[in-house]
Amino acid sequence: MPDLWSGRLPGGLDPEARRFSASLDLDWRLAPYDIRGSLAHVEMLAAVGLLTPPERTEIAAGLEALLAEVLDGAPPWDPDAEDVHSAVEAELTRRIGAVAGKLHTGRSRNDQVALDLHLFIRDAVPRTLAELHRLVDALLIQAERHQTTVLPGYTHMQRAQPVPLAHHLLAYVFMLHRDRERFRAVYAEADRSPLGAGALAGSTLPLDPDLSCAHLQLGRLYENSLDAVSDRDFLLDYLAAGVQTMLHLSRLAEELVLWSTREFGFVRLRDGWATGSSMMPQKKNPDVAELIRGRAGRLLADFVGLATTLKLDFDMTGPKMAS
Amino acid sequence: MPDLWSGRLPGGLDPEARRFSASLDLDWRLAPYDIRGSLAHVEMLAAVGLLTPPERTEIAAGLEALLAEVLDGAPPWDPDAEDVHSAVEAELTRRIGAVAGKLHTGRSRNDQVALDLHLFIRDAVPRTLAELHRLVDALLIQAERHQTTVLPGYTHMQRAQPVPLAHHLLAYVFMLHRDRERFRAVYAEADRSPLGAGALAGSTLPLDPDLSCAHLQLGRLYENSLDAVSDRDFLLDYLAAGVQTMLHLSRLAEELVLWSTREFGFVRLRDGWATGSSMMPQKKNPDVAELIRGRAGRLLADFVGLATTLKLDFDMTGPKMAS
Amino acid sequence: MPDLWSGRLPGGLDPEARRFSASLDLDWRLAPYDIRGSLAHVEMLAAVGLLTPPERTEIAAGLEALLAEVLDGAPPWDPDAEDVHSAVEAELTRRIGAVAGKLHTGRSRNDQVALDLHLFIRDAVPRTLAELHRLVDALLIQAERHQTTVLPGYTHMQRAQPVPLAHHLLAYVFMLHRDRERFRAVYAEADRSPLGAGALAGSTLPLDPDLSCAHLQLGRLYENSLDAVSDRDFLLDYLAAGVQTMLHLSRLAEELVLWSTREFGFVRLRDGWATGSSMMPQKKNPDVAELIRGRAGRLLADFVGLATTLKLDFDMTGPKMAS
Amino acid sequence: MPDLWSGRLPGGLDPEARRFSASLDLDWRLAPYDIRGSLAHVEMLAAVGLLTPPERTEIAAGLEALLAEVLDGAPPWDPDAEDVHSAVEAELTRRIGAVAGKLHTGRSRNDQVALDLHLFIRDAVPRTLAELHRLVDALLIQAERHQTTVLPGYTHMQRAQPVPLAHHLLAYVFMLHRDRERFRAVYAEADRSPLGAGALAGSTLPLDPDLSCAHLQLGRLYENSLDAVSDRDFLLDYLAAGVQTMLHLSRLAEELVLWSTREFGFVRLRDGWATGSSMMPQKKNPDVAELIRGRAGRLLADFVGLATTLKLDFDMTGPKMAS
Repeated sequence: MPDLWSGRLPGGLDPEARRFSASLDLDWRLAPYDIRGSLAHVEMLAAVGLLTPPERTEIAAGLEALLAEVLDGAPPWDPDAEDVHSAVEAELTRRIGAVAGKLHTGRSRNDQVALDLHLFIRDAVPRTLAELHRLVDALLIQAERHQTTVLPGYTHMQRAQPVPLAHHLLAYVFMLHRDRERFRAVYAEADRSPLGAGALAGSTLPLDPDLSCAHLQLGRLYENSLDAVSDRDFLLDYLAAGVQTMLHLSRLAEELVLWSTREFGFVRLRDGWATGSSMMPQKKNPDVAELIRGRAGRLLADFVGLATTLKLDFDMTGPKMAS
Repeated sequence: MPDLWSGRLPGGLDPEARRFSASLDLDWRLAPYDIRGSLAHVEMLAAVGLLTPPERTEIAAGLEALLAEVLDGAPPWDPDAEDVHSAVEAELTRRIGAVAGKLHTGRSRNDQVALDLHLFIRDAVPRTLAELHRLVDALLIQAERHQTTVLPGYTHMQRAQPVPLAHHLLAYVFMLHRDRERFRAVYAEADRSPLGAGALAGSTLPLDPDLSCAHLQLGRLYENSLDAVSDRDFLLDYLAAGVQTMLHLSRLAEELVLWSTREFGFVRLRDGWATGSSMMPQKKNPDVAELIRGRAGRLLADFVGLATTLKLDFDMTGPKMAS
Repeated sequence: MPDLWSGRLPGGLDPEARRFSASLDLDWRLAPYDIRGSLAHVEMLAAVGLLTPPERTEIAAGLEALLAEVLDGAPPWDPDAEDVHSAVEAELTRRIGAVAGKLHTGRSRNDQVALDLHLFIRDAVPRTLAELHRLVDALLIQAERHQTTVLPGYTHMQRAQPVPLAHHLLAYVFMLHRDRERFRAVYAEADRSPLGAGALAGSTLPLDPDLSCAHLQLGRLYENSLDAVSDRDFLLDYLAAGVQTMLHLSRLAEELVLWSTREFGFVRLRDGWATGSSMMPQKKNPDVAELIRGRAGRLLADFVGLATTLKLDFDMTGPKMAS
Repeated sequence: MPDLWSGRLPGGLDPEARRFSASLDLDWRLAPYDIRGSLAHVEMLAAVGLLTPPERTEIAAGLEALLAEVLDGAPPWDPDAEDVHSAVEAELTRRIGAVAGKLHTGRSRNDQVALDLHLFIRDAVPRTLAELHRLVDALLIQAERHQTTVLPGYTHMQRAQPVPLAHHLLAYVFMLHRDRERFRAVYAEADRSPLGAGALAGSTLPLDPDLSCAHLQLGRLYENSLDAVSDRDFLLDYLAAGVQTMLHLSRLAEELVLWSTREFGFVRLRDGWATGSSMMPQKKNPDVAELIRGRAGRLLADFVGLATTLKLDFDMTGPKMAS
């Protein structure tokens, strides 16, 4: 059943092809979004009469149970499932039977995947913003404290003019302010529902995409079904905002590394935020700052990876990624 | 004179070091922005009394003459100048004498370079937007014409559902709409003046940065001098918007390449927009579409190059790029 | 004990710093190499008299037991360990007691990490080569079969001249031949032992790095201790070879996608290597080929990520990566 | 004539398309290689009887004259030519008339472009190797001088163990040794002739590609015509070797920047290799080192750009780049 459902030909995928295509380890974190999307779809189907009230109740209850388990940290029910969507569908079918198949009414894997990604980003951005907010607060507290602390300002790493430390720290506050603006713009882009777009050209069924959109508290629908299923701009925007942010944090981290050298000696790291050396007890290594400094590379790599993958997509229905 | 002015030590740079550092071939296109920035700086200096009226008149006239020549397409006056800023300064000094040196009052190379880049992007964005507008118009005209033309919609490059060509083309209109929004956001970011920030910590002179900002019709000042001289976010934002746009255009170009194959045969390229082959007269090659398809790679490369360069900057006064 | 051992200051890392620094989920696959490296180190220490025969026996037996478990697929003994090295050390100490600490004699985390990476690549390359060999064989079999099958050769995706399919497939064989040469060069680079380099400047103990090198069947030692601990060239070479290979495979996959379209129709995918669609039963999607096509982006991203991270390293003892 | 020759349809390219396709500013530096390749092709054509002795003499003399002008630094004869190949052909035709067209016998633009790139890289690698040799010599001289100079060795930018400066500098010598090995491998890859491969499937004429290969002193022919015209591996290998080298030089430059800070104070830059500041006369800026440090980003960007462009190529006859 699940194999037919997920578009398998008779006989199913060759085991080696299946192993190669499997993406569950990567996309399992989409599980709560996948289930929430299905819940909204069920409500819409019931509202327009494509599900009977008992069907709606049964499927929704099944999905709610799965969601509760996922939010509780449960691992995939079937670790050999090909992807998160198949894993959820198969488990739902196992629990409530063939009625689970009705979830496919008026929905395709294409608009389903696109929706999962929208919900994922819509959830991720506020958490990122909250972290940035914490950091800005920390910088402001230090700036408040160090209004009269003066340190050398550098150009070309040569001492140039004295600068209050508060002024120096506030420069980061302004950078992070721009970063937060970028993430807010990403949120607005992600805040849309592709449901109703189907595989690429909508559906002949009397669907009401506004209803599922409202149920998910998403801001608006896409105007065009081909754009709805293939748009990944918001993912790349998210990574671009991440690259900018990490460049700022990398600079800050680099300064902490430099300032905590014996030669500069501008800061002393708190013990819990540095590491030592059994051979050289006098040492205090700025590991955490070093790791932050290096993370910009990872974000840049992700940006390149996604951009390169998107470049390949020319059949208008979204890149063929392992999720 | 110019060597002292541009910060050279006695004896000047070693010729090999000078050749290595030279960036005039890359940054000469900044010349009009550099001169306009200087003109605004002169107005401000005169307004606050740091230039006498005759000095103001003399320097401004000299700059206006240089600007006229640059806009007329003149090549660098001295092709061996180290960079565009030195080239402009040296030529101004050659023409009007030592009074040109007053242009350095209350300004450093750091806020000067940052300003040039702001003015460059502020100029580039509207031209990009106008080009995107032209393309959207062309797509809308075709969409209007092809409301009843139906072509196969593809998923995984396999025929899936029929789609009106108009619907297909409008998907690109919506993508380009998002691209234009991105470029508008870049404009808002670039629309600021760093003048007054000096090398990194402002100046003790009674400058009025609001005046030069207004003279340049820039939207606002930076709040922090360190941020003002080191901010290159708007450059990376510009390239990120460019990457997204080129991914969309690359997809469109890829479709034109595919559709103009004999096998698909959905479009016939106009003769002036294809090339043939002397050996194979039946051929019609979609060169232009192929080139567009490949440009996304160039933008992505520029993004990586700038991000990597910015990563190195940790003395808070802007990356050390050849321009 | 483990905290002091791994260079922790009194009090240990702040829990948040520890969580941030943790890399066990990424580097656990280094575990067999880490243990094998320790085994070779033990043999050397015993040979030069820095371990007594009973110490050698006890530590080696402990390590062998851990290795057997790891090769058997065991998960980390302590999932909260900071990294693979700490996890192994802590578990060994738990099992055989304080004698485990002797493993630190004449070795630092720096040469240990470098060694693990060498062993990892030395192991990975032959497996990659074997896979490429399999692919070349498959191409040769098809080429043999299709010596008289003629298909159109394309330039600019327009039909140009007829080409035997065998000739077309052999082009890939020659590309893959170059790829194999590249991987063989990577093997030669990775086939060296950094043991004996210590943190960065060797050791005053009477170590014999040739012995551990021979025990690991590595080709040769590094000539310079700073180079030994900081060299990651072979990792970047490995990824560069991977990028080239994936560009070739991506091209092959792209052709399979194109050739399996209804419009081209040059190949028919075997059922087990394609997927269908419940809504559109006539469809046969080339998912596997699409995934291969997209993998070049992942390799390119990894290359960018590693190169960017390496760029930050300027204290000569290897990049500060989460392994 | 040139338009037909270079594969133009009647009426020629639309001026806007032509402007967009033009690449002469980028590929003019290929001119000497393009002409040398044509000279070798002429010799081969004459040897197999496809050119008469007078034709051979006339064309070769014309090409030699063009080559002399190019090597003398002449700009393009027609700045509006589309690319370097068209520019050379058109000028040759202008000078010697229709006989110039015989140069097309048994050669296509595809094997011609591929050959130009091979010759370009074969020429570039020895120059790169010579520069690296100079640098190694300079490092060896300093190492010789500083065998007893001891400086702190750093890990995590914290002082760890003392290290002789000679030892530190020799680490770079070993890195550069690997870089030179990489460039030598690139040379071996580039040292091949694609002539004879034609557009993609060779030619029915009785060509003797071994002759033109020998005339160009290239090491060997390609075994497969499709591989011959589409292989760009050696370009990407060249950039990969460049990335590695620049990562090493970037690290060295970073150290010079750091060591020349007032805080570290390990080196004093020679006046001709530093810049000062008119406002801050005590400053000595390590501009050259900063520029070198940043160049790794440019190489990495070029690598990404080329890899992304190559990814698009799936018609087996080389990427569609502007040159």
